[in-house]
Amino acid sequence: MTSRARIPGTRLLHSPGPTHVPDEVVHAMARQPTDLADPRVARLIATCEDGMKDLLKTERADVFFYAANGHGGWEAVIANLVAPGSSTLVPGTGHFSDGWAEQVEAFGGQAVRTPYREGWPIDPAAVEAVLRDDTAHRIGAVFVVHTDTASGTTSDLAALRRAIDAADHPALFVVDVVASLGAAPFAMDELGVNAVMGASQKGLMLQAGMAFVAADARAMEAARHNPTPRFYWDWQRRRSDLGYQKFCGTPPLAHLAGLEASLGLIAAEGLANVHARHARLAGAVHAAVRRWGEGGALRLFTQPEAARSVSVSAIEVAAGIDPEALRTVARERFQVAVAGGLGPLHGRVFRIGHLGDMNEAMILGCLAGVEAAMQVQGIAFTPHGVEAAIATLTGDEPADPTPAPPGEHR
Amino acid sequence: MTSRARIPGTRLLHSPGPTHVPDEVVHAMARQPTDLADPRVARLIATCEDGMKDLLKTERADVFFYAANGHGGWEAVIANLVAPGSSTLVPGTGHFSDGWAEQVEAFGGQAVRTPYREGWPIDPAAVEAVLRDDTAHRIGAVFVVHTDTASGTTSDLAALRRAIDAADHPALFVVDVVASLGAAPFAMDELGVNAVMGASQKGLMLQAGMAFVAADARAMEAARHNPTPRFYWDWQRRRSDLGYQKFCGTPPLAHLAGLEASLGLIAAEGLANVHARHARLAGAVHAAVRRWGEGGALRLFTQPEAARSVSVSAIEVAAGIDPEALRTVARERFQVAVAGGLGPLHGRVFRIGHLGDMNEAMILGCLAGVEAAMQVQGIAFTPHGVEAAIATLTGDEPADPTPAPPGEHR
Amino acid sequence: MTSRARIPGTRLLHSPGPTHVPDEVVHAMARQPTDLADPRVARLIATCEDGMKDLLKTERADVFFYAANGHGGWEAVIANLVAPGSSTLVPGTGHFSDGWAEQVEAFGGQAVRTPYREGWPIDPAAVEAVLRDDTAHRIGAVFVVHTDTASGTTSDLAALRRAIDAADHPALFVVDVVASLGAAPFAMDELGVNAVMGASQKGLMLQAGMAFVAADARAMEAARHNPTPRFYWDWQRRRSDLGYQKFCGTPPLAHLAGLEASLGLIAAEGLANVHARHARLAGAVHAAVRRWGEGGALRLFTQPEAARSVSVSAIEVAAGIDPEALRTVARERFQVAVAGGLGPLHGRVFRIGHLGDMNEAMILGCLAGVEAAMQVQGIAFTPHGVEAAIATLTGDEPADPTPAPPGEHR
Amino acid sequence: MTSRARIPGTRLLHSPGPTHVPDEVVHAMARQPTDLADPRVARLIATCEDGMKDLLKTERADVFFYAANGHGGWEAVIANLVAPGSSTLVPGTGHFSDGWAEQVEAFGGQAVRTPYREGWPIDPAAVEAVLRDDTAHRIGAVFVVHTDTASGTTSDLAALRRAIDAADHPALFVVDVVASLGAAPFAMDELGVNAVMGASQKGLMLQAGMAFVAADARAMEAARHNPTPRFYWDWQRRRSDLGYQKFCGTPPLAHLAGLEASLGLIAAEGLANVHARHARLAGAVHAAVRRWGEGGALRLFTQPEAARSVSVSAIEVAAGIDPEALRTVARERFQVAVAGGLGPLHGRVFRIGHLGDMNEAMILGCLAGVEAAMQVQGIAFTPHGVEAAIATLTGDEPADPTPAPPGEHR
Repeated sequence: MTSRARIPGTRLLHSPGPTHVPDEVVHAMARQPTDLADPRVARLIATCEDGMKDLLKTERADVFFYAANGHGGWEAVIANLVAPGSSTLVPGTGHFSDGWAEQVEAFGGQAVRTPYREGWPIDPAAVEAVLRDDTAHRIGAVFVVHTDTASGTTSDLAALRRAIDAADHPALFVVDVVASLGAAPFAMDELGVNAVMGASQKGLMLQAGMAFVAADARAMEAARHNPTPRFYWDWQRRRSDLGYQKFCGTPPLAHLAGLEASLGLIAAEGLANVHARHARLAGAVHAAVRRWGEGGALRLFTQPEAARSVSVSAIEVAAGIDPEALRTVARERFQVAVAGGLGPLHGRVFRIGHLGDMNEAMILGCLAGVEAAMQVQGIAFTPHGVEAAIATLTGDEPADPTPAPPGEHR
Repeated sequence: MTSRARIPGTRLLHSPGPTHVPDEVVHAMARQPTDLADPRVARLIATCEDGMKDLLKTERADVFFYAANGHGGWEAVIANLVAPGSSTLVPGTGHFSDGWAEQVEAFGGQAVRTPYREGWPIDPAAVEAVLRDDTAHRIGAVFVVHTDTASGTTSDLAALRRAIDAADHPALFVVDVVASLGAAPFAMDELGVNAVMGASQKGLMLQAGMAFVAADARAMEAARHNPTPRFYWDWQRRRSDLGYQKFCGTPPLAHLAGLEASLGLIAAEGLANVHARHARLAGAVHAAVRRWGEGGALRLFTQPEAARSVSVSAIEVAAGIDPEALRTVARERFQVAVAGGLGPLHGRVFRIGHLGDMNEAMILGCLAGVEAAMQVQGIAFTPHGVEAAIATLTGDEPADPTPAPPGEHR
Repeated sequence: MTSRARIPGTRLLHSPGPTHVPDEVVHAMARQPTDLADPRVARLIATCEDGMKDLLKTERADVFFYAANGHGGWEAVIANLVAPGSSTLVPGTGHFSDGWAEQVEAFGGQAVRTPYREGWPIDPAAVEAVLRDDTAHRIGAVFVVHTDTASGTTSDLAALRRAIDAADHPALFVVDVVASLGAAPFAMDELGVNAVMGASQKGLMLQAGMAFVAADARAMEAARHNPTPRFYWDWQRRRSDLGYQKFCGTPPLAHLAGLEASLGLIAAEGLANVHARHARLAGAVHAAVRRWGEGGALRLFTQPEAARSVSVSAIEVAAGIDPEALRTVARERFQVAVAGGLGPLHGRVFRIGHLGDMNEAMILGCLAGVEAAMQVQGIAFTPHGVEAAIATLTGDEPADPTPAPPGEHR
Repeated sequence: MTSRARIPGTRLLHSPGPTHVPDEVVHAMARQPTDLADPRVARLIATCEDGMKDLLKTERADVFFYAANGHGGWEAVIANLVAPGSSTLVPGTGHFSDGWAEQVEAFGGQAVRTPYREGWPIDPAAVEAVLRDDTAHRIGAVFVVHTDTASGTTSDLAALRRAIDAADHPALFVVDVVASLGAAPFAMDELGVNAVMGASQKGLMLQAGMAFVAADARAMEAARHNPTPRFYWDWQRRRSDLGYQKFCGTPPLAHLAGLEASLGLIAAEGLANVHARHARLAGAVHAAVRRWGEGGALRLFTQPEAARSVSVSAIEVAAGIDPEALRTVARERFQVAVAGGLGPLHGRVFRIGHLGDMNEAMILGCLAGVEAAMQVQGIAFTPHGVEAAIATLTGDEPADPTPAPPGEHR
């Protein structure tokens, strides 16, 4: 069997990234390259920079694109902002805050973690407390994973901004929007975010292989004084009018052309509509999982309603259920590809991605395929999950029950 | 709104043609043309001819490809086989036998019809009776629609062959496999079929725009003596070793390249597996419809189990239900495109295509989308149709109940 | 060796059809089909109809598209306009007027031919004479091949219109613009053309497989009274608001999507610019051939400058030179695909297509590849043909010498 | 004007990277992503690793792929092999050895340069001398740019290997094959190369955005002891059986699928044939330039015949000639895109890329387009350059004159 073995039909891809790539993006990425001095290249880059600023809702940040994946994007942030010996607060969101913190430490930085409570978003009070205690202001930045792809939990950025402000701490507010951008609302300037990073293969609906960073003047200034050795990632070197310089070498033209197309699709649909679509589809998944789980076979991993990501749902299975075997059946027998648990969640959860170029038919096909796989696996789920999902999509039931009153769960 | 208005995600296409085009075929059709004298063109044509013979299970017929749609394929058969004033028996299958007969008449032929009983396949006894009565052998050919796309009913070709033989009538046996080829078993030589025609956009998984005919020696001989004016459709002129002659002008290279790819996919999956997949997916649809219809809101239009097409299911709705409005909701709100009723069935049925490049996830997404649309439309269907479909796919229930004993329904 | 044997790089395709397909068209044709009731289909068809009317410069004709090649387009014209026993004047242009006339005769019509003088366009005086002689008005139509692809000769439609008018003859003026549309100026209404036909794979820059006809009220009226048996081609049946009816069955959606894109490209470039580009590139080819031929090894087949097609150049070789061997070397060794001679010109000419999605670099690469192949073949051409072509493109020499004074050659 | 402004036809891209992407690669890159746990992903990665080892002719090195461009590939080498304060010998090849050395210094390494003589490859004697002088063995590695894309000069790796051996120095031999791999012969194990890096957008015929490194046991051992902070680039972390680990996050699936296709194309053509094709096309360019330059208007920048790259030719223009203006005319008027001079060569040279998915027709079209542009610019070139190129391709003249006797120029 080769990597091209026949799969009949469209396999429904419900990984939380890479995600389905729309035709328009596929075709844009399929265009032949041009020579780099062609003025079309400069226009393409400018369109992407402007479009990203619009999407990030920033007027004041510089945008940098990298041929890299999301970990490369992290490294760009770290190499520019983490000085050897400096402290960085990385509030616990689970797998991805752990990963980012570990990467900070690989660069000789000290990563201060707040405790992670499984199934819960970052506790802004814990962040505030750490910052208040840091009276010497040794913490240079707070690195926040907006949506942790492993847990499907989204933290409240506005509350975190308020926590930093309440502590009156000068740390930079740095956000990873890898799994949230293009799915959940985000507004860099309004949130007072100093740097933000993300990647191409999720809400941006591109193939994997491009990361981006946006950095405001404070972040740029911090980078300027940071002696960490770097060249490829370096923001100063990339701050240039020359395309070749902006990318520290050859720009990833196909990804840029794809991004131009993707930003065009988002604009055509309307960003608010894109967000509403994500919330609607997430609501359908949540409803199905709640129904399936009534008998205790499984449950949404993220506890507070308001913290359940619109991009991805982690679904925790009861002891004795093997989510990896379930995935294999779903993929190989029903052509539905869902994701598994990462790190400590491996073997405990499976995940359904519902972000990017996604619609009702796809999400219903996914849920029905998962139900079929659960049946094959003999899992004692409560039936009618797909119908519960349908009920939210037809408006017969609210997509998500009224969230708990504010303050209760965070 | 242009023809390119944004549709998020993959819309699930469950028209019975055109059908989803696999990537491999899309890419083959995307190849640049070559000059027609390039030896690669001759090889491409030869590969397609050989592959079609394999698929049709014929060693003795000539294959002709046309830039045309299915009606063009019909016209090719008529222009070659129907002499002015001659008689052609077109046993009633509903919309498509009516259409073919009407086209025969437009060419000055007389079309003899057997009565069509809604929801039932061709009655071989009626065919035998007409042929027995035709002692003067004025009927030159029997034109049989294998699967009538409008009704989702498949007739029994072996029984029809036996009927012709029993009447000891020399009429040519001509079959339209437009909606069945690549989905249901067919064997030209074994069935004693003299001519067969089909089109590209269904089980062959191509874009619309190419039709084919295969004709055996008796059919070629009949064509030779037929004075009907024709040139483009003419088999004699196309029987040539020259590519340009074979196509009466420029060959549709993109469709041929697509066909080469499509035949390769069928071979890679294995024709028996392709047929089994179609039966399995059809069974899932049938199960869902049976469940939804338990309360009388809808039912499978085709009555005998054995005559239900593996390609397409026509679903009859109860009075007061508007299948067209249902389709619009399914398409525009849930991204599931199903087909409507044709001719006299317009407003009485909707149709789900389950042929070609199709899999479990797609069919489940389709069924769930239809269920959602029925909900929106306030249709009083019996719930749990998707679950009934899942049960057949997981093997917890037989896909189709044991068919009635032979003889009972036909 | 399969039909996919490795060809390094982009082969330069200089067949006069099929021609290079632009990326935008490739991608449009690569879009998945939709169900036919989707309102996007109706919009797509309307866009194509409107765009074709614009391109043909007609406000009063109906446009019909066929899944068919150019010969199918001819058959559409014949089946609708040629009544059995009627006469049709087909002025001689060589291979393609012969072919069209032969097809007329296959439908039981009488084809009246004017003599063809090799290398020369239609003589309007001869047309006028035939029509004057036809005092009984038995000739129903004049079928004119605008550019004969085999000879690379373009006839003067305005002069032919004047000839018909001068004869005061009611024959329909029917034009084949297969090889000229989108390359040379054409204006249906202004020229008083009653019906026009063409195909997709030349100036329209699509894959082969779609033909079109435009018919004005007089042509429609003639068709209405024509008893020739037909259905697929029939204009009356296709004159409908229903997409399915317009195409006598399933529309060739991929070709329509491609046409929408192609018409968009022509509009974006500007039709006048498209024509000017064709004239410029043709001028380069002519210059090269003139130079190569100074010693008599070859010459442009079309004698009058003004009749040299902007789409394709037929190049006549001296006795002893085998143009087919030359083509093989050009294609297989230098990756330049040119066309051969058709019919009586086989073995006497080769042809360079310079129409459609073509530019300076491609035409220069083609000419240089041809020069290389001539060298390999030991042909005694006069050197510096490519340089002569370059000189016309840089403006250092007029693309074509001053045409002979009017009246001299036609 | 947007980044999608209409360019008629195929523009001939003769940048030395990015280069033309073959259809097979375009289509492979256009495939939808899969979930990362799909076993097809593991097979794809394994195929790419094995194929790269074959291409690099190594059995003993580990291969690492990065979502990155060539500068990212350099950074991978530096971050793993250059310890702070260590010395690295970077023999002068011009722009790219300067760039690599600068990047070494940005990481706190000391870059020892050998003098660069314009137009000449690395002098092995100079390398040997530096290494002999380094009796303390402070130099940890020799970083060699095999082909400097800016100068079109290829250095002799075997001679450099002998120089290192002659000096009896333990420095690692590290080679940048960005511009040579897939064009010129290379054999990692045989040459005793310890680490090699390259990128996707040149001889590998992919879009930009992927880099690779191969490292043998000695290089891996050196990396293990190197304290330079890194994570994304780190070879140790990437040495894993897990796909996610191998790529430090999400693999660039589209690039990997493209590479699988590209390696397949190279294998289908035969690596020796690929090399011969590059030599043949380079010879044609060299011949044209020699001819054009007979009067002194321009000349090949690289002086020794044997050092002229088969991938790219830098062409030095006489004073008063503006190569940038020439490029603009070539691109915008003749659709031939060539590259400009980099760094100190800006304004002094232009460059013709002749690597990757390239053939005779393309290179001839390029040369003719350049000649046309020179004409427009009024450059006093000697005519008949294209004809000189043709003569080498037809075998009437040797592609490159007999190289100077060994020892003379290196």
